[in-house]
Amino acid sequence: MFSTNYPSRNLSAINMEKQDSSQKEKTADDLPNVLVLGPPSVFKAYERQFSDKFHCLKPWESAIPLHQFLSTHAGSVQAMFCSVSCPITTDILQKLPELRFIATSSVGVDHIDLHECKRLGVKVANAGSVFSEDVADMAVGLLIDVLRRVSAANSFVKAGLWHQKKDYPLAHKLGGKRVGVVGVGNIGLEVTKRLKALGCIISYTSRTKKLDLTFPFFPNVLQLSTNCEILIICCALNDQTHHMIDKNIMLNLGKQGVIVNVARGAIVNEKELVECLVKGEIGGVGLDVFENEPDVPHELLKLDKVVMTPHHAVMTQESFRGLFEVVVRNLDAFFVNKPLRFEVYSRDD
Amino acid sequence: MFSTNYPSRNLSAINMEKQDSSQKEKTADDLPNVLVLGPPSVFKAYERQFSDKFHCLKPWESAIPLHQFLSTHAGSVQAMFCSVSCPITTDILQKLPELRFIATSSVGVDHIDLHECKRLGVKVANAGSVFSEDVADMAVGLLIDVLRRVSAANSFVKAGLWHQKKDYPLAHKLGGKRVGVVGVGNIGLEVTKRLKALGCIISYTSRTKKLDLTFPFFPNVLQLSTNCEILIICCALNDQTHHMIDKNIMLNLGKQGVIVNVARGAIVNEKELVECLVKGEIGGVGLDVFENEPDVPHELLKLDKVVMTPHHAVMTQESFRGLFEVVVRNLDAFFVNKPLRFEVYSRDD
Repeated sequence: MFSTNYPSRNLSAINMEKQDSSQKEKTADDLPNVLVLGPPSVFKAYERQFSDKFHCLKPWESAIPLHQFLSTHAGSVQAMFCSVSCPITTDILQKLPELRFIATSSVGVDHIDLHECKRLGVKVANAGSVFSEDVADMAVGLLIDVLRRVSAANSFVKAGLWHQKKDYPLAHKLGGKRVGVVGVGNIGLEVTKRLKALGCIISYTSRTKKLDLTFPFFPNVLQLSTNCEILIICCALNDQTHHMIDKNIMLNLGKQGVIVNVARGAIVNEKELVECLVKGEIGGVGLDVFENEPDVPHELLKLDKVVMTPHHAVMTQESFRGLFEVVVRNLDAFFVNKPLRFEVYSRDD
Repeated sequence: MFSTNYPSRNLSAINMEKQDSSQKEKTADDLPNVLVLGPPSVFKAYERQFSDKFHCLKPWESAIPLHQFLSTHAGSVQAMFCSVSCPITTDILQKLPELRFIATSSVGVDHIDLHECKRLGVKVANAGSVFSEDVADMAVGLLIDVLRRVSAANSFVKAGLWHQKKDYPLAHKLGGKRVGVVGVGNIGLEVTKRLKALGCIISYTSRTKKLDLTFPFFPNVLQLSTNCEILIICCALNDQTHHMIDKNIMLNLGKQGVIVNVARGAIVNEKELVECLVKGEIGGVGLDVFENEPDVPHELLKLDKVVMTPHHAVMTQESFRGLFEVVVRNLDAFFVNKPLRFEVYSRDD
């Protein structure tokens, strides 16, 4: 299913073997340069297909240090494809004077200095809504897992404990729970659809009230948290949302409270979260993201009420295929000066 | 939250202490007898509250063997409360000539000889729709878990492997998957609501086509399985459905196929399921039920593509409370000859 409609690796290899080395060089020279930083997982999965269309500059395959690699190609790099694992700082932007377009493999753009991009006239496009359904599925999957103890029960059965200890603790029902959605962009909206089918009582907060949403709106997360026992974090990370979910918010949710985070780790004050979990001041968490990935607070490793996935909410074969198509379409569009999809503007636009 | 609105254990204990022993006996004698077999988990959770209303006969607290216990109380037992863990056979029914009503804590009634009950004029009531939402939530939770590898990812992170091996295998998207629902009673209907919100392509089979359902209907599970990659089993266990999900059905679903079973273990041919999983002829399973609970096939214990819960789909505090209320209401109604809720008739009615 993974490579349907794309030339297979074997076929590409055979074609490459038919070309002599000068032809190879000529072909590569004819393709537009794309600097790849990170590299994004989707690049690794679709590398052949990307390389059929673009001359991909891959610093991780080069023996020279990154800053030297960038200087070497500075004059020829107009487009970049990057992931969240590589911060696009002023320093990097200044090393690439010809850069005009950055495609990121993520929805979040907190790793890119958007202000500097805007100043320099560099366009930025993200993954748009490609991942929204998958991220919403993961948010709801984590919520069901925490409330219904699915992962913990799976470990219990797999460790052979069902046979030994007949009783397993009661879980909690989804229906009737008051769930607050923090941020109702594409992902948050998909989350509300799923929560509705589960019979949850939904409310939300976002920068502005959405006229097409009938769920109760609260102007900030503090007010939302006093009216909910569960929060699902779906907003962007920025100066306003950094550590927005702190101990006060957690205590508002109460001892049965649950937080699910599929956005960015640093939206939650992780130290205070660990403290609340260890002290039993909050009921449980489902976390796909962490403040210092791939580091995870060691206190969480033994807790059944904590369900953790390795920043994996977007990691499906179907999302990867969708992202590959969007990025290729955007790079193609950029090089012929056509409109981009999912172009990102900074907040102060 | 668990015992709100019910007399607390301490208060009951104080009241009991105030009574002298003759009064105590008189009070217990005044309450109608209810034989409790199993015992159901909900009985254990709400024992005090049950005992306030009924004189509960508890064979597991008695030193004499069950058959002798039943003979001793044979003349006074008109009502019974039982769980799936205690088969209500012809033998047991014959030992209780005055029995007129059985309340079971389960939805399934395959542990009760319904034919004999009908012949003897014994009414049977099950848990009805009390559990439907919780079971549907678990079905969908298991499906998300298998497709998105939630439990496996949680184990991966908790074992500290994220830091060591940076890549975790890609998962599969829910949206667009062809999901067949086997049995559309209360639980199956709740499952379809949730699958719709997840963007799945739904079809179903049941004994008869449901006029109010617009999803494609297939007259049997064989035809359903040729049109799906995922099956969710929500039907009753009986002679027609025993081992209905066999190797042919599994092979029809294909190597990416997934089966979720929240109904009864014996609806699936477990031996053939294990064989298909071990050989990679099916993609994964989410199982809440097994053929010989609490025994689980040892081949499944190490497989990431297998997510298992210990017959736990109904095990929430909220469902228990709902069941307690229904059983008490039914026992009350039985003793004053009022209509019962969730009365069960055998198929040949």
